[in-house]
Amino acid sequence: MNGEKEKDKAVVLVSGGMDSCVTAAIARTKHELALAHVNYGQRTAAKEQLAFEAIADFYGVSHRLAVKLDHFRQIGGSALTDERIAVPERGSVREVEAALEIPVTYVPFRNAHFLAVAVSWAEVIGARAVYIGAVAEDSSGYPDCRPEYYRAFQELVKVGTRPDTRITIETPVIGKRKSEIVKRGLELGAPLELTWSCYQAEEEACGVCDSCILRLRAFSEAGRQDPIRYRTRRGLKASN
Amino acid sequence: MNGEKEKDKAVVLVSGGMDSCVTAAIARTKHELALAHVNYGQRTAAKEQLAFEAIADFYGVSHRLAVKLDHFRQIGGSALTDERIAVPERGSVREVEAALEIPVTYVPFRNAHFLAVAVSWAEVIGARAVYIGAVAEDSSGYPDCRPEYYRAFQELVKVGTRPDTRITIETPVIGKRKSEIVKRGLELGAPLELTWSCYQAEEEACGVCDSCILRLRAFSEAGRQDPIRYRTRRGLKASN
Repeated sequence: MNGEKEKDKAVVLVSGGMDSCVTAAIARTKHELALAHVNYGQRTAAKEQLAFEAIADFYGVSHRLAVKLDHFRQIGGSALTDERIAVPERGSVREVEAALEIPVTYVPFRNAHFLAVAVSWAEVIGARAVYIGAVAEDSSGYPDCRPEYYRAFQELVKVGTRPDTRITIETPVIGKRKSEIVKRGLELGAPLELTWSCYQAEEEACGVCDSCILRLRAFSEAGRQDPIRYRTRRGLKASN
Repeated sequence: MNGEKEKDKAVVLVSGGMDSCVTAAIARTKHELALAHVNYGQRTAAKEQLAFEAIADFYGVSHRLAVKLDHFRQIGGSALTDERIAVPERGSVREVEAALEIPVTYVPFRNAHFLAVAVSWAEVIGARAVYIGAVAEDSSGYPDCRPEYYRAFQELVKVGTRPDTRITIETPVIGKRKSEIVKRGLELGAPLELTWSCYQAEEEACGVCDSCILRLRAFSEAGRQDPIRYRTRRGLKASN
């Protein structure tokens, strides 16, 4: 821990999922961590917030901001925030990838809200970077997970904060396959067993939503067993 | 009202202040209105929300979204959201303008949160534009009130929403002096008497915060009496 205090602070958005957990592990190699979490009224909000707290405990981070946004439920338009829209269940990765359109789990313009929270906090606490675990490839095709989106957000931060504020937007896993993220997490000793990715279940992961299926494939490709519990892993068996 | 239904919808961010009220009046000439308001825990939140509802009633708009964000109080760093930081009081417009630095009433990266709410809602309801009453000149020097900020946000919306979503960010008063905004509002019959601008008081406007002082000057330059009640107009008397 020597020298830890001299590092610049970074705000890391930690959803409680695998990608953001590994992103925190990466950020920690360069920065003092400040961890931010957003409960946006999604189906598995309680579980994800527990995962956030567990990851923050694991890394001994006291600088935490847990925010609750109620308006995504008011606005709706996504299977994650509107109970009337079902979360799609698939039998395989092929089925996930065959769904070419943006899926109903897309939460309109969601990541802008998360980044805005992180940047406001970063500006107040003097953090020099905001990390987010967005993944462009090998994910669900959400428009706000692509590199050009983060380049645009970087420009927004540059022109929209105090002249002396310098905050970079960092997306260290954006170009990685999920299996590479698993491997990098394992190398860095990230607590993947504490993370939660399932879109719809909070006790045992469902194993059939897009998020579970992509996660299961990632562990499979990395040659590891996912340490969390699943109700079924049938999506995995049919994959590739 | 004939033909009203054929207009494209626009989401207008209505704070309850003068600039956003006139912005709504302008948007209404081209669009069917959907009005969004954000209570971000600012000192005068209750008063501003009442002003929003009154303006929406005045225009007969049923499509309303009132959102509450608690995290600005968690994050702090501004006189508007942290009671421990005093709102500056000035004797004149000169004093407002002499405060060259970004004032303590700057709420870090605030407008990104507001725009994110408006864009998410616009995407779900199929609105084609988001209007915000930002004013660059003749305002308090906030970085997120300048044209380049809205150009950057437009790019973010373009890359960060569904491929078939087309939402333009509209800032019709950004280049206007406040006195021009008053005049335009009066021409359009905007209900300026229902608006609220004071940063710190909710019964009678204080007359000495930056927002009151700039508003009083605007009415003075427009040759009109501001219809709302002030505790003092001494900032006005000393101006120019």
